[in-house]
Amino acid sequence: MPSSDGLHRHLIRVRYADTDQMGVAHHAAYVVWLEEARIAWLRNIGILYKDLEAAGTLMPVVDLRIGYRRPCRFDDELEFETRIAVPGPTRVEFHTRISLGAVLCAEAQVTVAAVDRTGRPCRIPAALAPRS
Amino acid sequence: MPSSDGLHRHLIRVRYADTDQMGVAHHAAYVVWLEEARIAWLRNIGILYKDLEAAGTLMPVVDLRIGYRRPCRFDDELEFETRIAVPGPTRVEFHTRISLGAVLCAEAQVTVAAVDRTGRPCRIPAALAPRS
Amino acid sequence: MPSSDGLHRHLIRVRYADTDQMGVAHHAAYVVWLEEARIAWLRNIGILYKDLEAAGTLMPVVDLRIGYRRPCRFDDELEFETRIAVPGPTRVEFHTRISLGAVLCAEAQVTVAAVDRTGRPCRIPAALAPRS
Amino acid sequence: MPSSDGLHRHLIRVRYADTDQMGVAHHAAYVVWLEEARIAWLRNIGILYKDLEAAGTLMPVVDLRIGYRRPCRFDDELEFETRIAVPGPTRVEFHTRISLGAVLCAEAQVTVAAVDRTGRPCRIPAALAPRS
Repeated sequence: MPSSDGLHRHLIRVRYADTDQMGVAHHAAYVVWLEEARIAWLRNIGILYKDLEAAGTLMPVVDLRIGYRRPCRFDDELEFETRIAVPGPTRVEFHTRISLGAVLCAEAQVTVAAVDRTGRPCRIPAALAPRS
Repeated sequence: MPSSDGLHRHLIRVRYADTDQMGVAHHAAYVVWLEEARIAWLRNIGILYKDLEAAGTLMPVVDLRIGYRRPCRFDDELEFETRIAVPGPTRVEFHTRISLGAVLCAEAQVTVAAVDRTGRPCRIPAALAPRS
Repeated sequence: MPSSDGLHRHLIRVRYADTDQMGVAHHAAYVVWLEEARIAWLRNIGILYKDLEAAGTLMPVVDLRIGYRRPCRFDDELEFETRIAVPGPTRVEFHTRISLGAVLCAEAQVTVAAVDRTGRPCRIPAALAPRS
Repeated sequence: MPSSDGLHRHLIRVRYADTDQMGVAHHAAYVVWLEEARIAWLRNIGILYKDLEAAGTLMPVVDLRIGYRRPCRFDDELEFETRIAVPGPTRVEFHTRISLGAVLCAEAQVTVAAVDRTGRPCRIPAALAPRS
């Protein structure tokens, strides 16, 4: 169940393969972590993304913004705090803060669009839509 | 040498490993491609990024924005058109359009910061700075 | 602590980014998972790989063999069962079975060599060496 | 066209994202490179892997062996020399040497199996089968 403030927390440990020769996590790794955190967020409210896809609703990323604040390193256990916003009937924005303890490492906004198997926009799952 | 309009073109072929089960290139692959295109852009004006790092200047990504317009697929040969903007003495923005033939697949803006090995901001290479 | 049979179990969930257009996890993903499982195996006997590196011992992979038995899919939670063998004073072999429930998905043998920062072979950590 | 000795050469440049905090290319990157080299090998004899898949023949990796000899680094341009062996009607082995100039960096053997869309073994493309 989501916490009462609608915020979900998810932990991801930085893999060795995520590092680069600067000695920190490579900036592309965050994109994969954010996807894992979104899927965990959905699971947390009872939506299995694999079931969504099996039922014919895909949710491709259409827009991605990441601000990198502080580098993180191998074996760091990062906390992903996610909230959503719903700008319309076919899109969801995931707003995520990535922290290591009290240190903010990155902030991200990822917009996904609900589409059917032919690529046409469709309604997001009812559980995500704001109550009117 | 750069073309007279300051625009550089770079080709990248979509790898099988870049695809996901939607049957298209995964959105995280673009981040790695954009890095290759930036490094090719620098090479094109005579800057080897490995030499920059060896000389003590790193250029980590501090901000990343990608708008995904059309999916691309395995074996597609994508064209990366890059221009830069220089918002200040320690940062460079790379503006890139990713196309497949006449179709725009994605637009991206990646900001990198010049830092020394201790992480302190430093001046970007002179070849990137606007002429006063 | 390791279980009494010297076997360590570790769980990894298949990420969406791990899939390819065959609809299964891409074969390269296993290599990254195996690394995570090795590092978890070491943590389980009290060795933090990051501390090893900080103390000057690196453990690069020198040989890798994977037999892929059954495909696995997005969101599958895979079990990694690892045992080690020690063929000599400077190398460790990690033998891992990757399963999904009762189904064996892959078997792997990864050999790592202990080296110092200059790349010269050095002794593996005492905790890994067989008792004489 | 293949060279007269049946050997095909393919170049891949090491990406920054391929590196890890040891300052060398991560061992998992080789797996993705080997896939690109196989697909280039096939293209070189007139087989587009995407056409194979579109026609219903998939070629998943069933066995992978890599011996890592010397590390390679960011921006290195590696040469992949590939030969094939055909152990039976439904499998192909790709034997690849990865070199940087005169230095052998790695040797690999990757076995792929031809399967139809249901996963059943099928004959490899005629162009790969040994002439009887």
